[in-house]
Amino acid sequence: MGLNSPATKSVKEVFELISEDLLAIEREFGRDTVSNVAAITEIGEYLRNGGGKRLRPALLLLSAKLMAYRGLGAVRLGAVVEIIHTATLVHDDIIDDAEIRRGRPSANTQWGNSKCVLAGDWLYMQAFKVAVAERNFAVLDTLIELTQKMVEGELLQIEKLGKLISLQEHFDLIDRKTACLFSVCMRLGGILGGATAEQIEKLGEYGHCVGMAFQIVDDVLDLTASEEVLGKPVGSDLREGKVTMAVIDALEHCTPAERDTIVAVMRENGFVSVQHADILKILKRYDSVENALLRANEFAVKAKAAIEEFPDSEYKRALIWVPEFVVERDK
Amino acid sequence: MGLNSPATKSVKEVFELISEDLLAIEREFGRDTVSNVAAITEIGEYLRNGGGKRLRPALLLLSAKLMAYRGLGAVRLGAVVEIIHTATLVHDDIIDDAEIRRGRPSANTQWGNSKCVLAGDWLYMQAFKVAVAERNFAVLDTLIELTQKMVEGELLQIEKLGKLISLQEHFDLIDRKTACLFSVCMRLGGILGGATAEQIEKLGEYGHCVGMAFQIVDDVLDLTASEEVLGKPVGSDLREGKVTMAVIDALEHCTPAERDTIVAVMRENGFVSVQHADILKILKRYDSVENALLRANEFAVKAKAAIEEFPDSEYKRALIWVPEFVVERDK
Repeated sequence: MGLNSPATKSVKEVFELISEDLLAIEREFGRDTVSNVAAITEIGEYLRNGGGKRLRPALLLLSAKLMAYRGLGAVRLGAVVEIIHTATLVHDDIIDDAEIRRGRPSANTQWGNSKCVLAGDWLYMQAFKVAVAERNFAVLDTLIELTQKMVEGELLQIEKLGKLISLQEHFDLIDRKTACLFSVCMRLGGILGGATAEQIEKLGEYGHCVGMAFQIVDDVLDLTASEEVLGKPVGSDLREGKVTMAVIDALEHCTPAERDTIVAVMRENGFVSVQHADILKILKRYDSVENALLRANEFAVKAKAAIEEFPDSEYKRALIWVPEFVVERDK
Repeated sequence: MGLNSPATKSVKEVFELISEDLLAIEREFGRDTVSNVAAITEIGEYLRNGGGKRLRPALLLLSAKLMAYRGLGAVRLGAVVEIIHTATLVHDDIIDDAEIRRGRPSANTQWGNSKCVLAGDWLYMQAFKVAVAERNFAVLDTLIELTQKMVEGELLQIEKLGKLISLQEHFDLIDRKTACLFSVCMRLGGILGGATAEQIEKLGEYGHCVGMAFQIVDDVLDLTASEEVLGKPVGSDLREGKVTMAVIDALEHCTPAERDTIVAVMRENGFVSVQHADILKILKRYDSVENALLRANEFAVKAKAAIEEFPDSEYKRALIWVPEFVVERDK
């Protein structure tokens, strides 16, 4: 790897480093999402128990600890980023008209769109409320830039639905959807830990690359994994009219007839005249899944390089392990 | 009135006091709602041109000027409160499934719910972005408390739809819907102008009372004015299952049969078995419209009393005129 410190070896090892703080974040998240309005508390609890991976707060914690930060701000901001992530999911489910999220009925199916619009609003504001209590303008500037970028990304995604977008357009979308929040988690850890502007940029670059790798793998799994593993139907992206990395790779090389096959799924919003297996065959023909995973791996390598110059510590070793974990996961 | 300074006499006179700043707020609002994502800019422009009364920024300006504030913060925060107000309208239209707003098709009819959820999110964030740039935590705390209270109010409203709520519950709802934003506008002016905590409380009390009076009159007009004046169908509240001040007053005094007549409109979501004139007859029988307007007038008197002790100025005289204008308006 060309790195002077070996990576950690397992999820367990990494999570043990931050397990107490992750539990503290769960408690903070729980306290933060209680309102005197019952519907908010109920929706908050439902989403909190939805079994997210808490990858975002974990990155924030590791980044803060890499900078030898010892305060409680990392726990509070860890909750903030998870609340923001949750708010985006609630509003995205309304937009995608999703019925299933993480293997359960989506919140809008349970509570209706109206309550979910408002619960999402409330969660965004609660995230800012907790963040404002930190009395740190750099934190607020970072979070507001982030949330606007994510919301704009969702609007761009709507405009590009059903269209054969370029790889560059796709990368902009997944940056806005995923990578920019990962990047912000890392940068917030740096801000708390008193990192220099240059260090914050490196931490942000690491988060961006991990996020890009994460989303590329997520999108590949949407095409190749089973419904049981995904907790939602296979090929959802394509059926919703979204082309992702592997499909874009295939489109760059395939025949006009194959292109029509792919477009049919997007046009028919499902596997109607074309089967899921037909799509997998096209992807296989052009090694498109492998090409996407190679690209994810490139991002993982760039992520590791970005934090090369930080001093060695168990936290640095954990951060070096994360990108490998992200590209090698199968769910 | 027991006040030592006479009120101003006309809308024109009051608006001349702040007309330059109101124009500056329009420009700021215009600049603030431009995004590199076309849909946001389009929806923002549509809403900005919708002809709001700009009553909220006007209160903020008058409050700041009452405190002899001379900086540009009042213009920026005037835009902020108008952006927040606009964001609530966009999301409310989705929730109410509104087709008409201020005499035009509502934004969700034009752009669809998905884009309007996101445009509303973006506007909230943009409001916070402009507010964060003021680098004043008291301002941020005030705005975040406000927006959460408003969103919770909308959720409470959903839970109370179709129910015969008490006057106290109704007052809580219109505080959250309208009065708390009016109160915040006044308090923000005070914060900018370096008011004492006691003065800020008085300014907030003034805003609260003006807002309560404003909403009571608005709700009366919804029952008594014509569709041309309202820019939307008559009796919308009742048809949507919302009882307002005059109806609550009638319900406290009417016969069981009259109660059934009122409930029928709410149950049938429209004037089906019951006509609009039947409702007006019941309200007339118990002087319920007059009783509601009396209550609005009480709030107007309380508003004026709240700012009694501020030193005399043309801004104070304008603020003393506002509550009278609010209760006497017929549209």
